[in-house]
Order: sequence, then C-alpha cells, then structure tokens
Amino acid sequence: MSNKSVNSPLFLGVDGGGTKCRACLTDAEGNRLGMGNSGPANANQALRQAQDNIVLAAKNALKDAGLPVSLLGELVVGLGLAGVNLPSVHGAMSEWDHPFASLHFATDLHIACLGAHGRDEGAVIIIGTGSCGYARVDGQEVMLGGHGFPLGDKASGAWMGLEVVKAVLLAHDGLGPDTALRPAVEAAVQISGVALAEKMAKGSPRDYAQFAPMIFAAADQGDELARRILIEGSEYISALARKLLEFKPGRLSILGGAAEPMRAWLDADVIAQLAEPKGTPEQGAVLLARLHSGLPEADNHST
Amino acid sequence: MSNKSVNSPLFLGVDGGGTKCRACLTDAEGNRLGMGNSGPANANQALRQAQDNIVLAAKNALKDAGLPVSLLGELVVGLGLAGVNLPSVHGAMSEWDHPFASLHFATDLHIACLGAHGRDEGAVIIIGTGSCGYARVDGQEVMLGGHGFPLGDKASGAWMGLEVVKAVLLAHDGLGPDTALRPAVEAAVQISGVALAEKMAKGSPRDYAQFAPMIFAAADQGDELARRILIEGSEYISALARKLLEFKPGRLSILGGAAEPMRAWLDADVIAQLAEPKGTPEQGAVLLARLHSGLPEADNHST
Repeated sequence: MSNKSVNSPLFLGVDGGGTKCRACLTDAEGNRLGMGNSGPANANQALRQAQDNIVLAAKNALKDAGLPVSLLGELVVGLGLAGVNLPSVHGAMSEWDHPFASLHFATDLHIACLGAHGRDEGAVIIIGTGSCGYARVDGQEVMLGGHGFPLGDKASGAWMGLEVVKAVLLAHDGLGPDTALRPAVEAAVQISGVALAEKMAKGSPRDYAQFAPMIFAAADQGDELARRILIEGSEYISALARKLLEFKPGRLSILGGAAEPMRAWLDADVIAQLAEPKGTPEQGAVLLARLHSGLPEADNHST
Repeated sequence: MSNKSVNSPLFLGVDGGGTKCRACLTDAEGNRLGMGNSGPANANQALRQAQDNIVLAAKNALKDAGLPVSLLGELVVGLGLAGVNLPSVHGAMSEWDHPFASLHFATDLHIACLGAHGRDEGAVIIIGTGSCGYARVDGQEVMLGGHGFPLGDKASGAWMGLEVVKAVLLAHDGLGPDTALRPAVEAAVQISGVALAEKMAKGSPRDYAQFAPMIFAAADQGDELARRILIEGSEYISALARKLLEFKPGRLSILGGAAEPMRAWLDADVIAQLAEPKGTPEQGAVLLARLHSGLPEADNHST
C-alpha cells in the first residue's frame, strides 16, 4: 500500500497549540520532507476543531512535501497536545477515529522536552505567553509552575504585562512612580487611565503578553519599573531552573518567545547550566512517533 | 393623598450594591421608620433585576415600618448605584418609569461619602472585596484606584486573596517560602496544588476575598507572608489617603469590611487624620434625597 517513491514509514510530528498547529513530516531516516501549519488545537475546549486542525496540518505537510493527501493513512503520527494529561481529554483522544496509520500523543511539554534534547529525558522551562517548568527523568515527569494567568505563570509574557498595566494605572493616579512604560503602553492600546483598566479587565493572557517586548526594551534603557519586573521574574526562573536541576535531568533548556531576552537576566550559575535546544517541539513529536515505533532517536535531529 | 399617620414627605435611601440592596426609610424629620433588604442591583449587567430589587427593598422598608405598600408612590428616593456614572446606565436609569414620587441617584461612592460625613463634601476610602478612593470637594469629584480585579483594587480583600493564593502555589512547588497561610487556604477550599489553581482560576473577587480574614489573623501571629502582603497593601492605602487629603476634603473616613483591621497597619500620620464615619451609605442615600428636596442635612444622622 505504501508509496514506493518515499522511504516508508513516514513520520509526522505535530505540535498542537492553543493558537496554531505545526506539523513536520519526515521519512524513516529522519529527513525532513515538508512542514504544515493550521489553526488552534484546544482539545479541552474545542475537541472537534482540534482534531480537524491536526488533520489539516498533516495534509498541509504532505502537500508541502509534494506528496498526495491519500498518504494520510500511512503516517505514523506523534502529537503534542496541551491538556492531554487531563483524563477527559485523554479519553476523547484515545477514542478518536483518526485517519492515520497510528497516533501517539503526549503533552505539549513532553514533546517540547523531546525536541529540545533529542531523547526522552531532560528538562525544559517554557517562557512564552505562559510559563512552566518540566522535567522527565527515568520515565517520571515533574511539572512545576504553570497554574495559569493571573494566579501563576510567573515571569511569563502575560505576567509581565499584568505587572506593567498595574503599575501604569498606579502611576496614572499618582499613586506609584512614573515609568517610561506608561506612554509606551498607552500608545500601544491607544487609551489611558480608567479606559485602559476597562479594556484590559477583559484582556486575555495574549493581550497582556503584547507588552513583554516593551519591558525588555525599557529595562535596557534603565527604566526602574521594567528592571524591577525583570529582576522579580528572572529570580523566579532561576529558582525554577535550580529546582528542575535537583532532579538531575542531564540537560536543561529554556524555550518560548521570551526565553532569549530572559536569558541575560538569569543568575550566572543557571546560565552556565543551560543547554541549547537541539530541535523544535514538532521535531520532538516526530521523535515521540519514532520511539513508539521502536526506531532509534538519533536521526530525528538531522531534519 | 399622603398618609396622615406619618410626617410626609417620606424619604427612602437605597444602597444598591452588587450583592444586595439596603434601604432606609425616614420621615421628614429624619427619624428612621424602617429598613428593607433585597437582592443585587448590578445596573450595568442586569438593569431590570436591579430596578426590581430597588422597588422590593422599598416595599420591605415600608412593611418594616408598618406602613402600607401603597405609599410607594409618595416616597422621595435617594439611590446609590455602582456604574451609574457610565452614560449607558445613567440614561437607562433616567428613563426608568419608576413607581416613586421622585428618584435621585448617584454613584455608590457618592452616597457612601454623604453617609460618612453627613454633608456633600469629604473623602472616603472603601476597602472591601474591592478598593477605591473618592473625594468630593466644591462639587468636584475625584475617583482614585479601583480599576477592578485583578488589575487594580490594591489592598482589597480580592487583592489580598490573590496574593495569598499565588504564594501558596509557589510554596507548593517549593519555589517560594512556606507560610502558615498554606494549610489555612488549603483547608478553606479543601484542595491543594494544581487543583487549587484550577478552582481559583475561575474564582470571582469574592472567592478570593474569603481569604482576607485569615491574612489579618496570620499576620497577628507573625507570619512573614501575611505581614508582607499587609505592609504592601497598607502602604498603598496610606498613599491613597494622602493623595485624597491633598484635595482638602475636610473629613476622610475608611469604610468597608476590611477597613477596621486595615486601620492598624496604616501610617501614623494617616491614622491621625481619619474621621469616624457618621452614618451608613443608605443614610447617605437618604441625605441625597433630602438635598434634592431642598431640606437640611443635619437631621439625617439622628436616624
């Protein structure tokens, strides 16, 4: 049944995220054949849409590789999906009558860790719109932090943004020190004061995270508030890193949109122990599929 | 048309709040005749329900006074209502075909200020589930703080509760110092760790404010986290008080469920300038009605 023009089996890794899916198609040797994107996969909130987008990303990767969509049924798929550790989501995904040859899923954290280290052991700290720490050692998982906005996710883009908006509102009332971030934030949303509070009261974590790049920029220019936020956030990330290293994961990487600018703010002993991520989460998802097929891990990161 | 057994006109003051309405009925001399409660008045979210509850509180106050409900049409009503400063709510309330002789409304802050000072000038800081500062001088209003949860309302019960839950989650992960509040919070909601985060992620300001009494109690017993939260919160309230005093309001009072325990944490110069509130918000609403009728203010606080 397999298409003789490619080395079967074909592996597809999918990073199913809250805003989009990214898929990576490889052959049996781990050579990358194509990439495909699609819309969000919030399995906990919209299961059917998530499944549709996973299939769509797979089709787009096949098309990108110049292969027929009819090969969908031959794909060995590894999928990372947030929330799949919840029993209800896990059950629903297990019962999915999917169109692939086989489907192996794990949490988004697990495939990020697989991708970063190229093997099923290691630790990652993700600093994006949210934040979270994860380690996997001897088959045991440790998850630290996270907990969502506004309760947890300290040092994340959303956390930084909330701290800034709180400070801008205090400055507006003359109840807190002024900051270069006040005109920057007000210009970004084109309102100030009570109207800013009203608008941001309904803001999503992403709405808050939009201010994160301004904070790094203002801190570089010496703004006290921006520096205070980054010091508090980076102290948390340093503590989180040390805690993960206690589990002796071998390698620790920091990932996510705010990882690179945050790195400079971390404590020197932590920076010294950080390893460059070897690959992306979707490459980690390919590796998940390979491990489940009993294939070696090594080739995955040549993609 | 008036009932000859009471001194007309009859004044009704209503404090229309987000969880309940409280009404106070007085005669022309300001003697209290009866009190009446009813359900919530969220005019911005549920206008019709708010209006129904205002009328119900009025009826209950008439009944409490042993007077017939048919006197509704003779009541001169003063009403304090959150959100009535918003043009949409103001418009809807102005167009209300209410059953009273007349209706005069103002914000909840304005009637709280009228009640606390017995005249149409002064300042109040309200520290309950939320927090806010308000001053009225020479007919000009100043509103400071507020801004809602989780952006503003610093030092409020909800703010304190959020700070505690954040710290309890950090302590749970070994990423923050432990606190006597951790077992207290976990016992109150009967869960811990990730489940606590999940539950509180959907929590209302009132859900968070439930932890405020524990914080005051733990601080009294020397808990470092509780002390740190109350020091940060009280510094904000002291700054808010000084800012309001800049407007020379004559009198400044602190009101609300957390006002009394917070008082001890305020700076000495602020405590020295605090005045005891003379009356309640619903008494302030009676005064609003009297002022609109050209009657003197003085009698109101003999009720």
